[in-house]
Amino acid sequence: MVTNTQHEIQTSGQGDVHDVTPLVARTIVDSELVSGLATVSVVGSTAAVTTIEYEPGAVADLNRLLDRLAPPDGHYAHHEQWGDDNGSSHVRAALLGPSLTLPFAQRQLTLGTWQQIVLLECDTRPRNRSFVVQLMGE
Amino acid sequence: MVTNTQHEIQTSGQGDVHDVTPLVARTIVDSELVSGLATVSVVGSTAAVTTIEYEPGAVADLNRLLDRLAPPDGHYAHHEQWGDDNGSSHVRAALLGPSLTLPFAQRQLTLGTWQQIVLLECDTRPRNRSFVVQLMGE
Amino acid sequence: MVTNTQHEIQTSGQGDVHDVTPLVARTIVDSELVSGLATVSVVGSTAAVTTIEYEPGAVADLNRLLDRLAPPDGHYAHHEQWGDDNGSSHVRAALLGPSLTLPFAQRQLTLGTWQQIVLLECDTRPRNRSFVVQLMGE
Repeated sequence: MVTNTQHEIQTSGQGDVHDVTPLVARTIVDSELVSGLATVSVVGSTAAVTTIEYEPGAVADLNRLLDRLAPPDGHYAHHEQWGDDNGSSHVRAALLGPSLTLPFAQRQLTLGTWQQIVLLECDTRPRNRSFVVQLMGE
Repeated sequence: MVTNTQHEIQTSGQGDVHDVTPLVARTIVDSELVSGLATVSVVGSTAAVTTIEYEPGAVADLNRLLDRLAPPDGHYAHHEQWGDDNGSSHVRAALLGPSLTLPFAQRQLTLGTWQQIVLLECDTRPRNRSFVVQLMGE
Repeated sequence: MVTNTQHEIQTSGQGDVHDVTPLVARTIVDSELVSGLATVSVVGSTAAVTTIEYEPGAVADLNRLLDRLAPPDGHYAHHEQWGDDNGSSHVRAALLGPSLTLPFAQRQLTLGTWQQIVLLECDTRPRNRSFVVQLMGE
């Protein structure tokens, strides 16, 4: 059995990180599925999904690493191609990946207590960001 | 229901990036599945799968980041072990990951318009690269 | 059909990398499933799952890259928040990701010969680490 739900959130731009764990957990509880895979996938090539301890310090540390790896004011060939300013967004998103697939069992995600599923906005401007929560299981 | 198809592509070596989105999309349309998970997984420890806007600028920017993180002419303990020259390939592939799992619904991948599924060759030499497209769903 | 098994391993702290391929392969063979998805997911926000050629050189090279990206003795906002010392662990784990989903067919993982599924301890201290192996398929 498969269920798909699409969601939208407003982001404030690069470095904005949203905890979507409560939404995914509720989607599981509201479904008829007991055991299976939960996939969170963000639409677009300038955002990413991973897990982190969702507290301001760890989130800031991750953003600081991404700023070093792909500074927003660096030189990017992508800028020359389209006149865009979000080359840093594309390489961050490609590195982190656009989706995360996690098991659930007995209607519970197999996450640690201080481990949250997060959607990272990598784009340089605020976005109305779409993402999909898909459940597959029995 | 599960379908597996194995594919091969010839790559030109480190930094060669292939858009496999049309192949995955066609595999979904040709299947009897309407909704589920599509997984693209590359065989071997020196290649990776992710999504990016597949245009030469963004691809070059990603390669430039990987060249900084894991320069091909750097020192690698892997070289001493086997006489190989592809230590940079192994760490790039481990960082990016060998597979990507994305939802599809109504026979369509949940991708943005400028977001493609890509296979990145990380090895230092051209490879005849195998990868698997698996669909699971209903 | 879905099967879930939870496992524990003792790790020696940051940089300790465990090959869990034999365990996943045996789980598939012992199940009634022929074809599907195998997911390995680690519980907690300071460990990660990926694939690599599991030999000491390549593992050391990956750890050396992670040491450069997120030095254990660097400054982390996470430390100020909780008095923890594992800011480097959180950003490494978020970058690599906590889970890996790979196809299997004819009861075999689609891995290369020198490609292993590994669990990376990123935490700064030894941990009794839980992880889940989930199979879904037919």
